[in-house]
Amino acid sequence: MVKKVPVGILGATGSVGQRFVQLLSDHPWFEITALAASERSKGKSYKDAVQWLMPTPLSSKIANLTIQPCEPDLSCRIVFSGLDSDVAGEIETQFARAGKIVFSNAKNHRWDKDVPLLVPEVNADHLQLIKQQNFGGGAIVTNPNCSTVGLVMALKPLHDAFGLHEVFVVTMQALSGAGYPGVPSLDILDNVIPYIGGEEEKVQSEPRKILGKLANGSIELLELPISAHCNRVAVFDGHTECVSVRLSRKADEQAVIDAWQGFTAEPQRLQLPSAPENPIRYFSEDRYPQPRLHRDSGKGMTVSVGRLRKCPLLDYKFVLLSHNTIRGAAGGAILNAELLVKQELVPL
Amino acid sequence: MVKKVPVGILGATGSVGQRFVQLLSDHPWFEITALAASERSKGKSYKDAVQWLMPTPLSSKIANLTIQPCEPDLSCRIVFSGLDSDVAGEIETQFARAGKIVFSNAKNHRWDKDVPLLVPEVNADHLQLIKQQNFGGGAIVTNPNCSTVGLVMALKPLHDAFGLHEVFVVTMQALSGAGYPGVPSLDILDNVIPYIGGEEEKVQSEPRKILGKLANGSIELLELPISAHCNRVAVFDGHTECVSVRLSRKADEQAVIDAWQGFTAEPQRLQLPSAPENPIRYFSEDRYPQPRLHRDSGKGMTVSVGRLRKCPLLDYKFVLLSHNTIRGAAGGAILNAELLVKQELVPL
Amino acid sequence: MVKKVPVGILGATGSVGQRFVQLLSDHPWFEITALAASERSKGKSYKDAVQWLMPTPLSSKIANLTIQPCEPDLSCRIVFSGLDSDVAGEIETQFARAGKIVFSNAKNHRWDKDVPLLVPEVNADHLQLIKQQNFGGGAIVTNPNCSTVGLVMALKPLHDAFGLHEVFVVTMQALSGAGYPGVPSLDILDNVIPYIGGEEEKVQSEPRKILGKLANGSIELLELPISAHCNRVAVFDGHTECVSVRLSRKADEQAVIDAWQGFTAEPQRLQLPSAPENPIRYFSEDRYPQPRLHRDSGKGMTVSVGRLRKCPLLDYKFVLLSHNTIRGAAGGAILNAELLVKQELVPL
Amino acid sequence: MVKKVPVGILGATGSVGQRFVQLLSDHPWFEITALAASERSKGKSYKDAVQWLMPTPLSSKIANLTIQPCEPDLSCRIVFSGLDSDVAGEIETQFARAGKIVFSNAKNHRWDKDVPLLVPEVNADHLQLIKQQNFGGGAIVTNPNCSTVGLVMALKPLHDAFGLHEVFVVTMQALSGAGYPGVPSLDILDNVIPYIGGEEEKVQSEPRKILGKLANGSIELLELPISAHCNRVAVFDGHTECVSVRLSRKADEQAVIDAWQGFTAEPQRLQLPSAPENPIRYFSEDRYPQPRLHRDSGKGMTVSVGRLRKCPLLDYKFVLLSHNTIRGAAGGAILNAELLVKQELVPL
Repeated sequence: MVKKVPVGILGATGSVGQRFVQLLSDHPWFEITALAASERSKGKSYKDAVQWLMPTPLSSKIANLTIQPCEPDLSCRIVFSGLDSDVAGEIETQFARAGKIVFSNAKNHRWDKDVPLLVPEVNADHLQLIKQQNFGGGAIVTNPNCSTVGLVMALKPLHDAFGLHEVFVVTMQALSGAGYPGVPSLDILDNVIPYIGGEEEKVQSEPRKILGKLANGSIELLELPISAHCNRVAVFDGHTECVSVRLSRKADEQAVIDAWQGFTAEPQRLQLPSAPENPIRYFSEDRYPQPRLHRDSGKGMTVSVGRLRKCPLLDYKFVLLSHNTIRGAAGGAILNAELLVKQELVPL
Repeated sequence: MVKKVPVGILGATGSVGQRFVQLLSDHPWFEITALAASERSKGKSYKDAVQWLMPTPLSSKIANLTIQPCEPDLSCRIVFSGLDSDVAGEIETQFARAGKIVFSNAKNHRWDKDVPLLVPEVNADHLQLIKQQNFGGGAIVTNPNCSTVGLVMALKPLHDAFGLHEVFVVTMQALSGAGYPGVPSLDILDNVIPYIGGEEEKVQSEPRKILGKLANGSIELLELPISAHCNRVAVFDGHTECVSVRLSRKADEQAVIDAWQGFTAEPQRLQLPSAPENPIRYFSEDRYPQPRLHRDSGKGMTVSVGRLRKCPLLDYKFVLLSHNTIRGAAGGAILNAELLVKQELVPL
Repeated sequence: MVKKVPVGILGATGSVGQRFVQLLSDHPWFEITALAASERSKGKSYKDAVQWLMPTPLSSKIANLTIQPCEPDLSCRIVFSGLDSDVAGEIETQFARAGKIVFSNAKNHRWDKDVPLLVPEVNADHLQLIKQQNFGGGAIVTNPNCSTVGLVMALKPLHDAFGLHEVFVVTMQALSGAGYPGVPSLDILDNVIPYIGGEEEKVQSEPRKILGKLANGSIELLELPISAHCNRVAVFDGHTECVSVRLSRKADEQAVIDAWQGFTAEPQRLQLPSAPENPIRYFSEDRYPQPRLHRDSGKGMTVSVGRLRKCPLLDYKFVLLSHNTIRGAAGGAILNAELLVKQELVPL
Repeated sequence: MVKKVPVGILGATGSVGQRFVQLLSDHPWFEITALAASERSKGKSYKDAVQWLMPTPLSSKIANLTIQPCEPDLSCRIVFSGLDSDVAGEIETQFARAGKIVFSNAKNHRWDKDVPLLVPEVNADHLQLIKQQNFGGGAIVTNPNCSTVGLVMALKPLHDAFGLHEVFVVTMQALSGAGYPGVPSLDILDNVIPYIGGEEEKVQSEPRKILGKLANGSIELLELPISAHCNRVAVFDGHTECVSVRLSRKADEQAVIDAWQGFTAEPQRLQLPSAPENPIRYFSEDRYPQPRLHRDSGKGMTVSVGRLRKCPLLDYKFVLLSHNTIRGAAGGAILNAELLVKQELVPL
């Protein structure tokens, strides 16, 4: 790839936007050519508009880019959107209509019939859906809710090998998932908040589309009852999830672990730049995975799994962990874009 | 009650021991006459031996008591034991054999056939079991694991009204449950530990004895499959639990809430000093209960419940919260002792 | 005092406002008759307008009071103001002009020549300043910045006994000092913020007025250079301060400790309801005071001091701790009001 | 450098030992050939003996090394010691006598007349002191206390340019400085501990040796009064320090900032592998530096400085931050070793 594809970031000053900037600062295929944010930041340099929260320093080239409004004439081919759902729906549609390829983190278009809800290790074939879109050169691709991604990654090898019948999941979600300023410190120090608005509904429904079958240009939802409880805990990054599953076919413990450890998929075969070598890492130590220790595995793109054991109600219990703003947001969207580039589905 | 019953505390310097001291410092029926701890503390004044962690100041009278060894000639009638399970079993038996009434927090005697596993709001009648004991005037009464108590309190009204069929529970447990020094700060700041040794087994089994039937001098265990995931989170006090239940009989949401809100039991009827006016408090706000805000409800003896909603797998989901070192340990043991005193089962 | 004085609270839903509500719910002299807040809350019941953060439950009587706008016709004689400084100045003046006695936490009027900056243990006589005010029956009394109060309380006995020459102070301030929502959790988890806007200026100047002399109806500022560094740390309540002082006259360590331990002042002599028995508590243990353990000493009104030792630069070093929203805000303002009532300076 | 120097790590399973392992796993000059720890770990593979706390995965080659006892026949030329001071003194001497070059983090040998207390950016010439040592081929080099390093780095350019007269410092120190298990979580959640045993004495004395002059084979201590208050706060890594200084010569603010920003020293000139490009980074934003955001600057070897402003007592106030287990311990010791290698002071 001689020339990099010019990309823009919508909502560039927000918490997901900052992750996009960080992950794209040194990307082999993409080059940031435009940063857009709300009216308030318009015209400022990025470094003056942003409250930079990433652990690595802001590259000086990007620091000096001028923030533009979120209007579709941004000079770029691909747009990564970290916009909030209250504005994302309409703006993303405008960008697609203007011929941009939009990779969205928001919920607005996830259930559109012709929009892929994409996790490249799980349903790479769903990307074909964009052929059904009528944006005249533009397109919209979404990634799921940050809690859904880890879950669906851990479920996929089980689904393939043994079939899924029922899923129970309780999340302990990181603060960064609520954006910035997000959760007040007075609400979470020495505390747990056992509620995240709208989250349980997403975790219960999105896996059914992602694990669904693409046939005749549309997705057939998987029949899969999921029950979710979602909690906020005092962790910076990394969503931990306690999961119980009932499988369609009997499997012994080693077979389940083998399914995870042997799991590899399209992004690994295509050697996409953001694809982790191991999409899933299984821990045999009882006390792992833990968010502080393992969220950055595979540069934040590996999903960590551990504590497989029998469930007295369903078949198995286990714990999973995934990085919510990398695998669960910006990193996931970039992997989606890499898949699209590699598949040459659209001219760039 | 003219004269207070003299009581001793075993393991008085530990985290549960300190709660005993705090809660008994001004008790209407009991008076602390003896404090015992390990050899290391023997002969020291309590204030010199303890690293006091309670939020209220240590009363000066108790501060100057001399620590004695954990030997059965302590001058007291009732013994509250905050000993660890690695030593509790043998020592508590010795005290019972020496004629003391022992109230234990440890797991060692919980499954003895003739030892009640007691939560006064749930199975006050089980206290009769001590008549089966052969300690010649002494007795042993246990209270359950700190995560079991909150669960079984919330389940009891549902069990009575609708019958219980299956229970799924994920805990987010406070640091104080691990004692002192307990969890290193480097392990829990910005982190979750998805494992607590031996905890899941207790939560899965103890409710079956507590909710079991006493008949012909022995307990018939309740048939009730429970699946538990136990986690440690950065909360000082208060265990939060996400629960899903399948009921034996259909119930609409209001009926479930009514069962909780109308719940009152033997400790309330007997007006035991540590009994909360409301054993269960139901919150209608989505974001409640929360450990920092509600753990001290009813002086730490009320179990808080909230977020009742349909479960896609079982029947209902909800969140509960209980104070792990008050209701779940020292306060629970004191309530047990109050019940025994009021029932006049033994001479005091 | 047969009949309670009717009091109103301005900014009742905020973090200081909630403390006022908590502390006044069961006050022997005052009765809450009016709650006022911003337009947004107007007309709602208090319980619907507030995000209650206090550890004790909201009394049902107050929960059902209707929020009124911050206009001076509130039916009450005394007004406690928890308003932010961006609006407090003008509104408090309006209330005073309408004949109310206003007790303010905001900085706006602290430096008005005829307004006392009051800490009853330190400068009770300054309350006479209100005689200089021309509000036609109304008055304004202020309490200092939350970091100033603890400092000036610990300095007062040293000032009286040995004279003060220079003060160095570094604060580690609690999150509740920033109000609600205040500090975002992403900014403070696993972090320190070494800056609090405007704080150092207040800590460096306010003690000079508080410790100043009232003569001929005005305050002569104390000549006292103070250097302050102010930091925000992940503590819920309680400001910790590291202090070094140079004294005017030599003093040995025991004399300094004696000065603190023997300290008692006007509020203690008058037995004001909110006055702690010991305004200052000195700890001999190296590791004390600590915010979690000692902030609630004397119901949050006692200032804790410890670690007195020689300073290689000035004379002595020590650590102090005070509760920032009780002693440092609402509790301090209530003590001011109690002093005024007891002194019968105005008709009530 | 064709062949890497074989190095061993003493106390390899501890918190500083783990940092050594992490930082040396991929070092251009050094190769880990031996890991030693206490008797308890002897004979185990490193991965089985260690509770790995570092954020990057343990390399598999090192994971499988067998732990040896801390005896001087370890097969290596250089030894990095992360031993605690209760055992470090004697063991390090034994290693030096056996001909090893020992780089120690412990306090035991810091004040030996012939042992350099080394910070390569500050006193690289002091390394010559080892010529005075009589270990027959072996040598001991120490690095200072973790709080001293950041302070002395920030002071050095001021000392060179303007002279130092007096220093006041208050530290807010990270949990990792106390080792593992170290600080119990119950002691630090929602809390500050205003005491670290022995720490203030080190911070007050060590800079005097480091900034002292080497003349005629011995160090002349700098005359410099320093007053330190040391606190523990709930931060994982990174010590924050509030500093006030009196300078010998007048300097305007820009001159001070220029002294820091222009600062470069021996490690930079020699291009030592662990030397940061900028030893000191100055922030102009009021709210910086902060531990979570800036501790990893320069791979943890850059000291961050900010908030320069006038001090009402001395001349200037500022805030500094340095990574306590990298710059302040393992990374500092490795930089010391790199300096020794480059200076070819001993045969390797």
